[in-house]
Amino acid sequence: MSVRSEHSRAIRLKQVMQQEGVSALLVTKRENVRYLTGFTGSAGSVLLAGRRKPSLITDFRYKLQAAREKTAGITVHIQKKDFAAALQETAEAYSVDTVWFDESSLTLEVLKRLKKEGLSLKGHRDLVGELRQRKDVQELKHIREAVRRAEESFREMKKYIRPGARECDLALMLEILMREKGARKAAFDTIVASGRNGAMPHASTTNRRIGQGDLVTFDFGAEAGGYFSDITRTYCIGRPTERQREIHGLVLAAQTAAIKNVRPGIACKAVDAAARNIIKRAGQGDRFGHGTGHGIGLMVHEAPSLSPLSKDTVAQDMVFTVEPGVYIPGWGGVRIEDMVLVSGNGAKVLTSLPRALDGLKLL
Amino acid sequence: MSVRSEHSRAIRLKQVMQQEGVSALLVTKRENVRYLTGFTGSAGSVLLAGRRKPSLITDFRYKLQAAREKTAGITVHIQKKDFAAALQETAEAYSVDTVWFDESSLTLEVLKRLKKEGLSLKGHRDLVGELRQRKDVQELKHIREAVRRAEESFREMKKYIRPGARECDLALMLEILMREKGARKAAFDTIVASGRNGAMPHASTTNRRIGQGDLVTFDFGAEAGGYFSDITRTYCIGRPTERQREIHGLVLAAQTAAIKNVRPGIACKAVDAAARNIIKRAGQGDRFGHGTGHGIGLMVHEAPSLSPLSKDTVAQDMVFTVEPGVYIPGWGGVRIEDMVLVSGNGAKVLTSLPRALDGLKLL
Repeated sequence: MSVRSEHSRAIRLKQVMQQEGVSALLVTKRENVRYLTGFTGSAGSVLLAGRRKPSLITDFRYKLQAAREKTAGITVHIQKKDFAAALQETAEAYSVDTVWFDESSLTLEVLKRLKKEGLSLKGHRDLVGELRQRKDVQELKHIREAVRRAEESFREMKKYIRPGARECDLALMLEILMREKGARKAAFDTIVASGRNGAMPHASTTNRRIGQGDLVTFDFGAEAGGYFSDITRTYCIGRPTERQREIHGLVLAAQTAAIKNVRPGIACKAVDAAARNIIKRAGQGDRFGHGTGHGIGLMVHEAPSLSPLSKDTVAQDMVFTVEPGVYIPGWGGVRIEDMVLVSGNGAKVLTSLPRALDGLKLL
Repeated sequence: MSVRSEHSRAIRLKQVMQQEGVSALLVTKRENVRYLTGFTGSAGSVLLAGRRKPSLITDFRYKLQAAREKTAGITVHIQKKDFAAALQETAEAYSVDTVWFDESSLTLEVLKRLKKEGLSLKGHRDLVGELRQRKDVQELKHIREAVRRAEESFREMKKYIRPGARECDLALMLEILMREKGARKAAFDTIVASGRNGAMPHASTTNRRIGQGDLVTFDFGAEAGGYFSDITRTYCIGRPTERQREIHGLVLAAQTAAIKNVRPGIACKAVDAAARNIIKRAGQGDRFGHGTGHGIGLMVHEAPSLSPLSKDTVAQDMVFTVEPGVYIPGWGGVRIEDMVLVSGNGAKVLTSLPRALDGLKLL
């Protein structure tokens, strides 16, 4: 089943390569290699995709693993010296003249090493990354499972969220629960930011103890089959103040507006603007300084980007986050983040924990 | 105290820059930025180091954090659009003509964006990474703590290592213990590879249950203050066979020989050869296909490299792993890995768990 997915991805890549006039493509980004082959080795493994069978070039450390995991239609080469030499040999064996590479992942250093081997190289966009924006059935299965692992873990952790609990302990508990449900790892360092700490969008978790009346932002995600989830909730511990209600309501209205605007064909920056305009009109524009969302899949942050500068366009089967926030130094912050799947005419929200400020009661 | 360390690192960098004729250096690698400034923000933050005060360019998400963490002598710029534009403005404000960059971390895509802004750019070696090879007192403190967290966790986990225990459960337990001791994360996905799984140097942990008489390889590390530890032990569950004893003894002899050869001034490839020759002479050369070790610090794998192709030279205050292994498909494998600190005339071994095949008894 998995083999079928990867096979159809390789076929789609071939079509794109033909359209773009790319006869041989060097795939260096780990997630791109995994996407096309299923191979999960972590370091220094590259794929040469072209008209013939794609070749996976890896090293001794992954010899057995590559043999076990390799999908039909891929040949595996174990490099003897370094991957530059192995790539040159492979290209020669396949009579490849020019190799296209992904400029977003290749460093100058690697490019120089490859050129030294006499390879003729051409920079290009990240074609595999572009394919990865639209998720197939197999990928959606993993993503939904990653969401389930995160949300169930949060529900189980909920009873420990009370005044006196330390941010770091809650974060650890959440990560342990996600691991116990089968996640290989947390999607990223879990954020639990209470009180004033909530004013930092990418807060580190501290030893701070949650206080009565605090807003607490939980930003977390799990893994399943190599895919990630990413969800944020801001809840109030106890009865919220008028101000807390107002800011939370504003962020929720902004998020709702953005999600409503999601449909195939709309510019990603228009989705961002739908959220941003609401926050701006409330006079809080300066306090929402990050983008509204990001694609998610084999990487926690991947294309498309939902921000004022984005050039991406929403397309069916994309999965991305929608996560506006308002951050007030010395006071705290609110962020609400959901994952959406783009359907034929709108967005399906994949995440389901209650969004309300007193949502802890509803769990 | 930390501020002092970072200040003296910045001074050393200035000296190196003068020697190399580099008047302004763009520091893009996250660990390099952290090393020089103490700033722990994760994404898209860069440092421009030159004759004047270094400038940290970051985005809205890290505004408060940068203000909290910034060390004396660094100015912080919050970029409004993207970092390329912010860098151009900063360079102009400081009358910087040419900016040198680290070819090992800059991608072609970023280079193009920077060139579009009209910046004059020159590729260079990773000067900050070269400084990072030799650890200062502050760094060694963190590294020793990361070792302590890993080793104490292993000692506490030990009682669960028995026939019937699943690899994945032991790995999770070890990671939880490391977290409870204060590690922000495991250094990498913990490896527990039993029986035949041990034949894969970078095995993924599976659901396999450990069997009586199995060799089990544990490869794990913790974090402290941003620094990592990395240690591997292969133990036998029960009484070892003659063959298990033989292979383990061979790997231990190779490791001991490599450690004995460590001293300032020796080529890293000579340390590798000390281990490799012993394994080759025993007729197992084909079964040791990876390098003997790697530097470790803010990254789990960093310079120097101890391998047959390495051009690095051992220097005082370096910290690296020494980890030969023998991997036999269908049978299993043995790897023994320790971290060493290079002293004035040899190596201090920082890791201390028993190396013997029946070492579990000694814990």
